[in-house]
Amino acid sequence: MKDLTIDNITENVHFINGQCSDRRLKFIVERLVSHAHDLVRETRLSTEEWMAAIQFLTEVGQTCTETRQEFILLSDILGISLLVDAIDHPKPPGASEGTVLGPFHTHEAQSIEHGGGIASDPEGEPLLVLCTVRDSAGKALEDVKIDVWETDSKGFYDVQYANHDGPDGRAILTSDKDGIFWFKAIVPVPYPIPSDGPVGKLLAKLGRHCYRPSHMHFMFSHPIYDPLITALYLKNDPYETSDAVFGVKNTLVVELGRVEDEAIASKYGVKVGSALMKYDFVLVTKEEALNLRYQNAAAAMKAQGKKMDYLNGLPVPEVD
Amino acid sequence: MKDLTIDNITENVHFINGQCSDRRLKFIVERLVSHAHDLVRETRLSTEEWMAAIQFLTEVGQTCTETRQEFILLSDILGISLLVDAIDHPKPPGASEGTVLGPFHTHEAQSIEHGGGIASDPEGEPLLVLCTVRDSAGKALEDVKIDVWETDSKGFYDVQYANHDGPDGRAILTSDKDGIFWFKAIVPVPYPIPSDGPVGKLLAKLGRHCYRPSHMHFMFSHPIYDPLITALYLKNDPYETSDAVFGVKNTLVVELGRVEDEAIASKYGVKVGSALMKYDFVLVTKEEALNLRYQNAAAAMKAQGKKMDYLNGLPVPEVD
Repeated sequence: MKDLTIDNITENVHFINGQCSDRRLKFIVERLVSHAHDLVRETRLSTEEWMAAIQFLTEVGQTCTETRQEFILLSDILGISLLVDAIDHPKPPGASEGTVLGPFHTHEAQSIEHGGGIASDPEGEPLLVLCTVRDSAGKALEDVKIDVWETDSKGFYDVQYANHDGPDGRAILTSDKDGIFWFKAIVPVPYPIPSDGPVGKLLAKLGRHCYRPSHMHFMFSHPIYDPLITALYLKNDPYETSDAVFGVKNTLVVELGRVEDEAIASKYGVKVGSALMKYDFVLVTKEEALNLRYQNAAAAMKAQGKKMDYLNGLPVPEVD
Repeated sequence: MKDLTIDNITENVHFINGQCSDRRLKFIVERLVSHAHDLVRETRLSTEEWMAAIQFLTEVGQTCTETRQEFILLSDILGISLLVDAIDHPKPPGASEGTVLGPFHTHEAQSIEHGGGIASDPEGEPLLVLCTVRDSAGKALEDVKIDVWETDSKGFYDVQYANHDGPDGRAILTSDKDGIFWFKAIVPVPYPIPSDGPVGKLLAKLGRHCYRPSHMHFMFSHPIYDPLITALYLKNDPYETSDAVFGVKNTLVVELGRVEDEAIASKYGVKVGSALMKYDFVLVTKEEALNLRYQNAAAAMKAQGKKMDYLNGLPVPEVD
């Protein structure tokens, strides 16, 4: 393999990678190389531009720390994160939709009891969150683990503070026998994604703003249900239709209510007039998700004219 | 822009990036997003796989240091570097071909006089390098700056040593009025590209070896000639046909000779029997290269059915 040219290099790179014994990795790398080479050919990418891209990617990696993940941010602003979630966690009609995880989920959150508070910020407007979690037949789901996280009233997650020394604005709850979970939080605010790094500079060059509409993150896990990574967005937020990371879905937009009477206020330990967020989540089983993922993949492969084998539900080209 | 799905997200990302006032950046990002999304759709990429890719890219960035560029290495082993060079530095018949820069060029090299030595390694086999540099009409080119670099006899560049404190195995020369430049070096050896980082681990997973055939790098610069980044490869090297970075071209493969008589040995200050590498390089002007780059780009765009404007010789979609 010598004398590689603009026209023959792609086939030759495929050939040398063809020895890979991991069929799924081989397939992904084959498609990656084809697309990367086509991108270069279609744009006639210059050496100077490629070196700028190398420099950019290096800075993205080097901006990542224990508490900041700039590559996820890059993936988010290019719409890749939402696309991967849509493919990997397909939802039948009626199930709660997923959205971007974002770069600020941590494994630090502590478990709280129903009614506990997740946020310590005294500047935040108090919010009562009342939710249920059910299956697609409407059955209440007990013992679902729910991870919730949000920013403080200034739009920053706990880990974005230099003096961060423990979780805040985040907690883990477990649904009760009626599928209910509830807690106290603060009303979410719109905020800019971190814009002091290479991804922020790219957004500026693209002429895009870096704001996300007000939202609260939720992640559900249970041994027999497909993990649901989602968020609830506040209606009429100024960034509702221009989220920097493409996360908003109509079914996830909620209108805040108010705690209207003394009985409710007293039951939940809040003041009359407090902001109230209510939502009923619907999970699908892992088996339903796997079947749907497989059906969608098979339909997509057929539409592309490809005959495939499936390994763990993921397509690989047939051999011979 | 809400409710983005597998099918409509790509168009919506293009729409939001359509505000970018830099037409070339807008075009490149548009193609990047299309290819990245197609890659995800074609492979039905899973969340777990995408997170592994994010982790891999983060490690690639974090492996880069002042003296190590792991993203260039990744670009090299995927054949992207060679492709970009082939597009950006097209060569008419008769001109010396280019090849990969590699991640070990530095700006530390010091100027030496003709006949000087570039390598201090006493274990290396002495090599006399005698070259000329001409234009495509055969005219000798004076005052061309030539950057040369190679590994020591163990296959390591100077910057790969922890105790590195200055250039070795590299130097800068200037061609004389007859287009001649010559120096003393050591016979190049095959060597593995750095395999202790994420790119090395990827190569192992792909079932590929990490060796480059024996070679010496050359980079030519002159105000009116197109920069030539190239290398000479030794004939019959065990890795001649399986270079980990796809750099070998037949016109760049040389057979080492020997200094056969006392007159030559005395003239160049070496021993009779010393290894000898001779090569005549041919440069093209920046104007020739620009014209050829434009012709090739226009032909490629036409073949893709695209009508384009050109900014600084690089294509951008026509507006309206």
